[in-house]
Amino acid sequence: MVTNLQIKFIKSLHLKKNRLEYGQYICEGAKIVQELISFKPEYIEIVYAADEWSLPITAKNIRLERVTCKDLEKMSQHATVPSVIALVNFPKKIPFQPVLQKFHLFLDQIADPGNLGTIIRTADWYGHKQLFLSPNCVDLYNSKVIQSAMGSHFRMECVEINFNDLVANHTFSSIYSTAMRGNDLNQLKDITGSLVIMGSESHGVSSELLTASDSKITIPSFGQTESLNVAVAAGIILHQFTTNT
Amino acid sequence: MVTNLQIKFIKSLHLKKNRLEYGQYICEGAKIVQELISFKPEYIEIVYAADEWSLPITAKNIRLERVTCKDLEKMSQHATVPSVIALVNFPKKIPFQPVLQKFHLFLDQIADPGNLGTIIRTADWYGHKQLFLSPNCVDLYNSKVIQSAMGSHFRMECVEINFNDLVANHTFSSIYSTAMRGNDLNQLKDITGSLVIMGSESHGVSSELLTASDSKITIPSFGQTESLNVAVAAGIILHQFTTNT
Repeated sequence: MVTNLQIKFIKSLHLKKNRLEYGQYICEGAKIVQELISFKPEYIEIVYAADEWSLPITAKNIRLERVTCKDLEKMSQHATVPSVIALVNFPKKIPFQPVLQKFHLFLDQIADPGNLGTIIRTADWYGHKQLFLSPNCVDLYNSKVIQSAMGSHFRMECVEINFNDLVANHTFSSIYSTAMRGNDLNQLKDITGSLVIMGSESHGVSSELLTASDSKITIPSFGQTESLNVAVAAGIILHQFTTNT
Repeated sequence: MVTNLQIKFIKSLHLKKNRLEYGQYICEGAKIVQELISFKPEYIEIVYAADEWSLPITAKNIRLERVTCKDLEKMSQHATVPSVIALVNFPKKIPFQPVLQKFHLFLDQIADPGNLGTIIRTADWYGHKQLFLSPNCVDLYNSKVIQSAMGSHFRMECVEINFNDLVANHTFSSIYSTAMRGNDLNQLKDITGSLVIMGSESHGVSSELLTASDSKITIPSFGQTESLNVAVAAGIILHQFTTNT
């Protein structure tokens, strides 16, 4: 039996300040909880599930509590009540080591949770293991980020880091900023070891980071719209640099 | 002065059945209304705006009604109250002519309005003028579709058409379906004159359309996530086929 106090606690984690205070967040839905169990079972505090949901037989040492659909509805942030909700601990903060991958993305002030989650999912698709986020991006443990990352955030080391601290401690072969009138993305010959900065939905890459970049790059356009959605732009850059450059 | 009846009518257009009955929909926000005035002023029935919003000096014969922020709040579907809302007539239904463009997209049962709007915006970026939609996609005049298309839907002819009717009346050089285990997208040499089918978020391309396709194509993957967001996938395909194939 789940107590009202436990339900109240889960609900309190809908807010960022409480997630930060307790170092915990929630994951909703069978697909994401399945990925959590497969990739980061050690992060799980407890799984609340309806009778219809069954713990995968491979799962070990996971604390499972059966609850009613009504309880899940009270705990959930979603319009559709999930069959399972997991209470998850934040990963331990350890100094990061740059992972060896063809290039890195740096996300500057991404504000929309759906965009951040979708970028994490797409970066995972292209084999990235590490992603850099400016400290003023939307919270990584926001429910919509988790939802749109579709479990990819369990496989991605998302490092929240100030740009200056990053470049002071790690050397990139080149730093590219995505911008309106830059060099055509498709003309770049070798991006190995580089850092690619993508900017916020409303303002693009901040002027400070533009200045710190070696060059501006632009996705070639053939139409009349002024800009692309940032998650779509990230997908195009990941595809172009991974498979065509 | 706007009457309560007018406000009630605008609000009634939040629902698809009323949009279909009256043949009208609403566009919210300065950016989208600006694009509407630039590209399809003849569709405008009336523009409701707060004093702070000014009609572009190039705009002619547009009926403008000044309203209070409170009125706009009542009319709006968005969390943030816009400075302007336009009441817009549906485009006239005329038999479509296939537009000459390198290839066409066919969207099969896209359910998420944000995804549909984002695909329209991205197709506009890559110079597409025409897009095919299966009749069971999310409504094109849904407020979230309009919002994420960012005005691109005024430049795009979105043709709602049954797949069988489309291929019975128009010959494509090839029909490709995006699917999990198909041919690598990057290996295709010439896609000129082809049709590319993208499927729904939850089920992918329907089996009927898969069978009707000449071949399945897949975006190469390097990671562990099972799938990409459909709007991101459309962006990657539009980029690859427009600039690398």
